[in-house]
Amino acid sequence: MTEFSFFARDADFSVAEIAALTGAEPCEGADLSRRVSGIAPVDQAGATDLSFVSENKFLASLRSTGAGVVLTTERFARHAPEGVAVLRVRKPYDAFVAVARRIYSGALRPASMFGTVGVSPGAMVHPTAELAEGVTVDPFAVIGPSARIGAGSLIGAHAVIGPGVRIGSDCAIGAKCTVTHSQLGDRVILHPGCDIGQDGFGYLLSAEGHTKVPQVGSVVIHDDVEIGSGTRIDRGGIRDTVIGAGTKIDNLCQIGHNCIVGRHCIIVAQSGLSGSVTLEDFVVLGPRTGIIPHITIGKGAITAARSTIYENVPAGQFWGGFPAKPKKKWLREVVALEQLAARARKHSDEPNST
Amino acid sequence: MTEFSFFARDADFSVAEIAALTGAEPCEGADLSRRVSGIAPVDQAGATDLSFVSENKFLASLRSTGAGVVLTTERFARHAPEGVAVLRVRKPYDAFVAVARRIYSGALRPASMFGTVGVSPGAMVHPTAELAEGVTVDPFAVIGPSARIGAGSLIGAHAVIGPGVRIGSDCAIGAKCTVTHSQLGDRVILHPGCDIGQDGFGYLLSAEGHTKVPQVGSVVIHDDVEIGSGTRIDRGGIRDTVIGAGTKIDNLCQIGHNCIVGRHCIIVAQSGLSGSVTLEDFVVLGPRTGIIPHITIGKGAITAARSTIYENVPAGQFWGGFPAKPKKKWLREVVALEQLAARARKHSDEPNST
Amino acid sequence: MTEFSFFARDADFSVAEIAALTGAEPCEGADLSRRVSGIAPVDQAGATDLSFVSENKFLASLRSTGAGVVLTTERFARHAPEGVAVLRVRKPYDAFVAVARRIYSGALRPASMFGTVGVSPGAMVHPTAELAEGVTVDPFAVIGPSARIGAGSLIGAHAVIGPGVRIGSDCAIGAKCTVTHSQLGDRVILHPGCDIGQDGFGYLLSAEGHTKVPQVGSVVIHDDVEIGSGTRIDRGGIRDTVIGAGTKIDNLCQIGHNCIVGRHCIIVAQSGLSGSVTLEDFVVLGPRTGIIPHITIGKGAITAARSTIYENVPAGQFWGGFPAKPKKKWLREVVALEQLAARARKHSDEPNST
Repeated sequence: MTEFSFFARDADFSVAEIAALTGAEPCEGADLSRRVSGIAPVDQAGATDLSFVSENKFLASLRSTGAGVVLTTERFARHAPEGVAVLRVRKPYDAFVAVARRIYSGALRPASMFGTVGVSPGAMVHPTAELAEGVTVDPFAVIGPSARIGAGSLIGAHAVIGPGVRIGSDCAIGAKCTVTHSQLGDRVILHPGCDIGQDGFGYLLSAEGHTKVPQVGSVVIHDDVEIGSGTRIDRGGIRDTVIGAGTKIDNLCQIGHNCIVGRHCIIVAQSGLSGSVTLEDFVVLGPRTGIIPHITIGKGAITAARSTIYENVPAGQFWGGFPAKPKKKWLREVVALEQLAARARKHSDEPNST
Repeated sequence: MTEFSFFARDADFSVAEIAALTGAEPCEGADLSRRVSGIAPVDQAGATDLSFVSENKFLASLRSTGAGVVLTTERFARHAPEGVAVLRVRKPYDAFVAVARRIYSGALRPASMFGTVGVSPGAMVHPTAELAEGVTVDPFAVIGPSARIGAGSLIGAHAVIGPGVRIGSDCAIGAKCTVTHSQLGDRVILHPGCDIGQDGFGYLLSAEGHTKVPQVGSVVIHDDVEIGSGTRIDRGGIRDTVIGAGTKIDNLCQIGHNCIVGRHCIIVAQSGLSGSVTLEDFVVLGPRTGIIPHITIGKGAITAARSTIYENVPAGQFWGGFPAKPKKKWLREVVALEQLAARARKHSDEPNST
Repeated sequence: MTEFSFFARDADFSVAEIAALTGAEPCEGADLSRRVSGIAPVDQAGATDLSFVSENKFLASLRSTGAGVVLTTERFARHAPEGVAVLRVRKPYDAFVAVARRIYSGALRPASMFGTVGVSPGAMVHPTAELAEGVTVDPFAVIGPSARIGAGSLIGAHAVIGPGVRIGSDCAIGAKCTVTHSQLGDRVILHPGCDIGQDGFGYLLSAEGHTKVPQVGSVVIHDDVEIGSGTRIDRGGIRDTVIGAGTKIDNLCQIGHNCIVGRHCIIVAQSGLSGSVTLEDFVVLGPRTGIIPHITIGKGAITAARSTIYENVPAGQFWGGFPAKPKKKWLREVVALEQLAARARKHSDEPNST
């Protein structure tokens, strides 16, 4: 359906260049001078597209592909139609991504929605805010008193940067993000509609009503963090809420006050960390994982989709279930319950059963 | 508490007209010339209101209702107080809705928040954007380069329409929606705070850190789709993310990259589709349903509240649970576990049990 | 990392004043004239900070704390280093909060993001809107026709107040909130990115497609309600959606149309109420609680994290699980299943088992 091209293609590559870039080996007969300028799935690719195949389920599509160049494994290489330039490589998807990142280098970071250069005349930047060189500010962004924005960063349309907020260099703050009481490192990406730094959920409960606890910590987000659309990170109560370098957080997640998230974690969509949760480095939370307060997830631990974590998870383990436990144990319980119900049913189906 | 009327009443109807419109049959003594200009629940309705009763639990309210006109079934008709005009019909709620849609025709699509006519002087429309006739643009909306907006569409306050986005005719884009890398059909409604078209969550994971995979697909939303407040739809990685015609999505849902949602699906609040999920036509997902990647839900299948789908669901089936399975099987397991725990408790309560 | 101070300190207090304010008793040797001007956790506190200790796990930190003043219990008091002014009190955290609320009185309610006084020249206020004395309107806020804003309220940057909306006095409407078809009481706080008053999710389903039911109720929010970032409250279908006085709702919650939430409820993050749910007063919903339509949760009832409520919960009970049941019963089932799986495993490990 598309006529307008949403993505600029910043470079094109010959088969020889792709081989050099990825370590892939051209198959016999591959035209080393053939060039590709785009990427596409193997069933949709055309003559100027690069594609890849690494799974059996795409074998049929490979056999009839119109792709100009295909990255694939030894095993699948001979199934490509004649005329397709085939490159053999152990990890075709990794090689494909390496080339895609070059062709679409502009897609690695969100850009201005308005083609803005510099500060849009429609934005409001407080006179006491400091913008480094090469900052782009889209229409209707608001940058508050004493905020500082690092070189090369983009502040999206309608983003609100609160008083005193520090944003590093080469960041992209998405449209309609609110960032308050926070310090961001370099190359941080926030997709549209994130709210970072608002009050944590803290009250003294009583039978007469609930008393708000002032939330006077902040949010610290280290370098190379990427945060999905609609995710919320509350500032700390009296400590800071911290997101470690290189961590990637998907859409619509909730990070409660005082959480410490380590480096290079992956938090998939709609997950929620209650207050004072600690994730050590390289933790992977499957989608819709929930964690109760004051829990620690050990280094490199993984959770299955919709895990509910009620106790600390040791480093390196894979947990799942509700309440979550080691994955094998959880799956044994799933099977045991299934068998129990099947036996109960068989009993009740027997004419003479009691 | 209301003094200001939030909803214009666009028409009023006589009992005779309601009968004609809905096929309902006026009961003996109903004043065919009585007119209603509003709707209300049977316990709150006044003399100029239309109401309905289709369930036993509203019988007491029916007996004392002050409604001018009531649509109900044969069974309940005789319980209305004298003086109420009663119309008998097999499906009172359907008939009620048919009339309500006429009285409140203005409530079927969100309207300008500012009484704007044409393009608000506070909006920023890029000179290369194309607006068809009768487009309304509310204050502070941003419409980017080469975007095209179809006739009669409303772009809400603070909405951001990215470069090259196509929006069909008679759409309503809610306040503070961001729409990028997307094509929308006609009569699409987005409620406030949706983000459509941002990057999907794609990385190559490694022990040294994670590498972003450029997301160069788009989002295609077909005619008559309605999307609830705060819902996120990520654009595809190399394919498109597609929402089929007539599908209705509730608030705070997550639709991952490359998902294909069929026609006339219903996706209830806080549900989440991981990447590359397929819903065939007329699927109904109960609230908080979660689906892991690469799953297909067959035509007309239904899921119970908080189902977690770990495997393909065949067409027409009703599934529930975690992990989800056919509903009857799930409920048998719920019962079997309950009985198991009750037996275990009985044992432990016996004085001589081991 | 912070250089800029995000939080003004509005007062400082001597040990004698803290004792008077909280009823705490200074320990022998405490310097009654020592003053604190900030708060900090016991392991991070400095000489001008107030801290507290109420749990064993902070005992080691207490022994080496640099805090100027510590509130703690009889039991821990003797463990503070010499030179720290120690105040004994039965509930140290409550006392600590009482002082913190005085020191950081400005943190009890969100403030302007731009240092705005009065109505920002960048805001758009409809000529028919009425603003009482002392209203602050941040840049790019939109206030629609016939809206009324009470004295001392803050309308945040990019907030959208729809036609006819009533907002009471001393409210704080966060950045990028949309409030339509609603009436808010006094001292209501909405954190950034809430949407209040949009259409509920109502359709007549059919095999030919789904028909939108006009949603002509409103939202009524009573005094002293606080609502977290990204939460959605849909307006009623024909009744109103109501949030009772003093209720606190966390981030990313969903409140469906026609819900009636009582007074002083606590709804923790990512919870979801389907349509027509009733919470009586003082209900506490743990994080990620989900409730199906037409359920009533009795006064003072509590739900565990990720409860899924499929039936009415009696007043005062603590429920958990999926489907939820009384907590003890749920936990017995968790244990029974664990034991069943362990037995099954033992059997299958035996060499001669069938």
